[in-house]
Amino acid sequence: MSPLDMKVTESGQGTLVVHAGRASKAVQELGEDESYSLEITGSAAALNAATPLGVMRGLETLLQLVETTSRGFAVPAVAIQDQPRFPWRGLMIDVSRHFMPLDVLKRNLDGMAAVKLNVFHWHLSDNQGFRVESKKFPKLQEMGSDGLYYTQEEVREVIAYARDRGIRVIPEFDMPGHSTAWFVGYPELASGPGPYQIERKWGVFDPAMDPTEERTYKFLDKFIGEMAALFPDKYFHIGGDEVNGKQWDANPKIQAFMHSHALKNNQELQAYFNQRIQKIVSKHGKIMIGWDEVLNPDLAKDVVVQSWRGQDSLAQAAKQGYRGLLSFGYYLDLMWPASRHYAVDPMSGGAANLASDEAKRILGGEACMWSEYVSPENVDSRIWPRMAVIAERLWSPQNVNDISSMYQRLDVTGRWLEWLGLEHDSYYAPMLWRIAGSDDIGPLRTLADVVEPVKDYTREETAPVEPTSLVPLDRLVDAVHPESATAREFAATVDAAVAQPADPTVGTRLKKLLTAWSTNEADLQPLESNSFLLKEVIPLSATLAQVANAGLQALDFLDRHERPPDSWVAQQTLLLQDAQKQQAQLLLMIVPSVQKLVQAAAQNPEALH
Amino acid sequence: MSPLDMKVTESGQGTLVVHAGRASKAVQELGEDESYSLEITGSAAALNAATPLGVMRGLETLLQLVETTSRGFAVPAVAIQDQPRFPWRGLMIDVSRHFMPLDVLKRNLDGMAAVKLNVFHWHLSDNQGFRVESKKFPKLQEMGSDGLYYTQEEVREVIAYARDRGIRVIPEFDMPGHSTAWFVGYPELASGPGPYQIERKWGVFDPAMDPTEERTYKFLDKFIGEMAALFPDKYFHIGGDEVNGKQWDANPKIQAFMHSHALKNNQELQAYFNQRIQKIVSKHGKIMIGWDEVLNPDLAKDVVVQSWRGQDSLAQAAKQGYRGLLSFGYYLDLMWPASRHYAVDPMSGGAANLASDEAKRILGGEACMWSEYVSPENVDSRIWPRMAVIAERLWSPQNVNDISSMYQRLDVTGRWLEWLGLEHDSYYAPMLWRIAGSDDIGPLRTLADVVEPVKDYTREETAPVEPTSLVPLDRLVDAVHPESATAREFAATVDAAVAQPADPTVGTRLKKLLTAWSTNEADLQPLESNSFLLKEVIPLSATLAQVANAGLQALDFLDRHERPPDSWVAQQTLLLQDAQKQQAQLLLMIVPSVQKLVQAAAQNPEALH
Repeated sequence: MSPLDMKVTESGQGTLVVHAGRASKAVQELGEDESYSLEITGSAAALNAATPLGVMRGLETLLQLVETTSRGFAVPAVAIQDQPRFPWRGLMIDVSRHFMPLDVLKRNLDGMAAVKLNVFHWHLSDNQGFRVESKKFPKLQEMGSDGLYYTQEEVREVIAYARDRGIRVIPEFDMPGHSTAWFVGYPELASGPGPYQIERKWGVFDPAMDPTEERTYKFLDKFIGEMAALFPDKYFHIGGDEVNGKQWDANPKIQAFMHSHALKNNQELQAYFNQRIQKIVSKHGKIMIGWDEVLNPDLAKDVVVQSWRGQDSLAQAAKQGYRGLLSFGYYLDLMWPASRHYAVDPMSGGAANLASDEAKRILGGEACMWSEYVSPENVDSRIWPRMAVIAERLWSPQNVNDISSMYQRLDVTGRWLEWLGLEHDSYYAPMLWRIAGSDDIGPLRTLADVVEPVKDYTREETAPVEPTSLVPLDRLVDAVHPESATAREFAATVDAAVAQPADPTVGTRLKKLLTAWSTNEADLQPLESNSFLLKEVIPLSATLAQVANAGLQALDFLDRHERPPDSWVAQQTLLLQDAQKQQAQLLLMIVPSVQKLVQAAAQNPEALH
Repeated sequence: MSPLDMKVTESGQGTLVVHAGRASKAVQELGEDESYSLEITGSAAALNAATPLGVMRGLETLLQLVETTSRGFAVPAVAIQDQPRFPWRGLMIDVSRHFMPLDVLKRNLDGMAAVKLNVFHWHLSDNQGFRVESKKFPKLQEMGSDGLYYTQEEVREVIAYARDRGIRVIPEFDMPGHSTAWFVGYPELASGPGPYQIERKWGVFDPAMDPTEERTYKFLDKFIGEMAALFPDKYFHIGGDEVNGKQWDANPKIQAFMHSHALKNNQELQAYFNQRIQKIVSKHGKIMIGWDEVLNPDLAKDVVVQSWRGQDSLAQAAKQGYRGLLSFGYYLDLMWPASRHYAVDPMSGGAANLASDEAKRILGGEACMWSEYVSPENVDSRIWPRMAVIAERLWSPQNVNDISSMYQRLDVTGRWLEWLGLEHDSYYAPMLWRIAGSDDIGPLRTLADVVEPVKDYTREETAPVEPTSLVPLDRLVDAVHPESATAREFAATVDAAVAQPADPTVGTRLKKLLTAWSTNEADLQPLESNSFLLKEVIPLSATLAQVANAGLQALDFLDRHERPPDSWVAQQTLLLQDAQKQQAQLLLMIVPSVQKLVQAAAQNPEALH
């Protein structure tokens, strides 16, 4: 519950006067005015905005200004004029691959409001699950969801909850590919013969809707009509990504259709499908959104393209007259550090040199939480606090981009979000308890604090058993933070030590950290028998000890102003190269910094040989 | 989300066969069969129960049997026949003094189901707030709740959620006292002239309904009718506690009524009121429950008495033919240790010698979470894990009462409950961050881990400012656990050391702990300027250092087999007496153990003087 939930009528000291120029639209619209001004003096605060949306954004700023001081909670005297850089600032959550209960969505909507995001993109169907109740086609959820879906009443509840926080809700029903879950109940929609089962694996699969059958469009007309009534927002996402075309190639009827309609390839067939769907979406009063692949010059110009391909793709669309959203660079499942997401700008690369009318077509961006490897237990930690830096990129001026300031503020924001009810910090210990088989997690935590999950799509490639939606997400790789704060701080300390080798406090701090890592294995090893989940972790723990010892030895050489033997340098270099490889799908994040120490020792200019 | 939410159809290895003999009643009833048998062999598990309620209880047992082993998750081969000792096992949550949002209630219902509780008693109205939407009398919630109330739709949502977990929901509308919040919108119900405001303070107040006016009963008939339809359970709680009678004494019209009706005192006037209300409750198809004060021989025999007074009061009611519930000894707001709650048995004291038909009238008990000093942020920590030991008292045989076994199992249960989504552990660090004004909470946590809030009603009596519902609950007393696990473990170590002074490992462990406490002040003191919330904590930190030093000196005398000077003993005894007093409404829980060390040193039989 945010502090603002309470409506107390008695007045205390100090006044906050809130003024909104007009009411909100009945349904929140793209581009509605979100600007506000906030003036705080010694005795009063005034928040003015054209709309209630602006008031909400301003209240979040006010809350974030609250500081704990030695005299009480306080806000600084400031005068702020603020408005968003982009009108579309979103978070997509994939609830198909792993279902997310309502409370997960609600606390994430709370977090979104706190960082001034205004679009929740709800990826509701995919091969692994169809997650909304359809009253017209009940076999969609009955056979396509394992019982894990949202009732229409629950959908309305989420939409109302989002609206109260100034957030639009965009549903996505991915078609014609990514649609196996539809075919479990309605195999007649598919291009290949059934029967179908809910897909348990990850990846791109063959099943695709049959774009040549009129019954497909009849079905989708009814279905989209039902969903268009359920979701009030003007925009409607039809997916449209990653059709591999194999079912189309294999179906003679479809081949004949393509021939008779002069459709040269599967791309043209999908363009035909998209045009039909766009007409249906439009007939039901909505504007269509799709991923890059929907882009085709014959498509209506109001279609919005969401780009997983990048700024060049976005720029190309803008030049053709299409509006676009950037998601490339904002995929939260790739486990990038916050700094890397922060550096991604929708107006960079190919989009940097657009003419101003073209540039305006770039509406903003959306972070994407694809859910192959997230559960309700750890999903917050994969979204937050990194989401906050993407939100800042989309709200604040392009030149607000200082990394060290960002990390400093992100620490504060992370705590703030946890107070709001997100669990990106509090999930951690309970997951480690399970792995350790007890609450004696000290040594496990010491290790966990300096590792990160493998990046990009390496998790697929290095999986010890084939990953599916039925494999529990209870390993260390699922428990650790996407970004190790401990390793980041260690790196900063090493950089300071290398730059100023004479400062003894820095050296002492490094030695303390390295010693703790070096001795940790002896504490962790005996716990192995408690839990099978520790087994894969132990070799990594041994590597941590070796790496820490290399660092300690390097420090020792540096301390003694002694140049190490070449053989030692060669040995450590090999060791560290090896230590950089993933183990148990985890990366030891202190390795590059220890490499710096070894290099510094090897090149020590003051050294006696 | 519990692991059982997922309905996967593919079969893996191992089978669990679940059989229920019949369907549940449309509305869950008191005394419905909750027994089950669970048989687990090397290859299969069978769960049999007469009803779905029994199945739910058995599934919770199965989940609690899961162990993490070196080979995987495992359940032991067992054969269990199980049923509850009492048919009524409840938790009352007061949502009037501090409102609790739906997510708080839902996660607590999850916890209740995990420990096999079957009644959620919802204390919905009191002087400080009226928390349910009434469509017949909308000013109740509109003027009596600060906007913090449950809509009827939300009430139905909670009831459905509880039913899915085998939990009945009993509403309580406290009358004729504890009812100021009603009078804000409907002053004509009161016995004294209005206008009224929502009460912000804690305690017993004068306002009470007017039992002499027919319009009071007309109003309550309509209101109870509306609520009887909303809440399907057969039982309906009318409160009935703590009427101080001052408004009745001061009202000549009421005095005249009492005279003309031969009502000798306020107790008889309340009995008259209760009889009228009981008829209304009964007319709407419900059975009335009330606190001890409703007990009166003229009342219908189906009324259930909930006792905050104790087993004697309960026994007296049973002898008069009334059924009863024990809540005395189960008040979670009094901050007792789990062991003390665990020792309270409904069938002890005056109830121990009841005849068997009388004994049967004792239906069970309810823990009570009165909410003067709990917020959505810390309420879980005040209920859990201690609730689990009361739940065991009400489910398991009376002779299951070993304290050390209880604490051992409670640790495991506490982790299990946190996995279920309760926040009795994870709330802690975020509250300490706020107090510390940063996430550098190490030294604060060291102190916080060894203190507990003052007990019983001392918090009222020692309050530094008058406590009201508008005072934020953000002090250290709000953040610390009701029971210090660290102090409990320290006490056990001291007991071992005193019993076996020769064991050096025990001495080493004690010295390590005492040294950490003794040096902690130096780390905490410099943080004081960060946050006003630390100010009251610093003197307590100084006391901790003194107490720890006393302990270290005592250990030193014991180590050296040297009897300390009498002056030293006298000085330490005085110091420790002082250290036992509350500071900042907190108790330093290591003091009694350090006293033992000082005594052991003083009486050291081996000592040389």
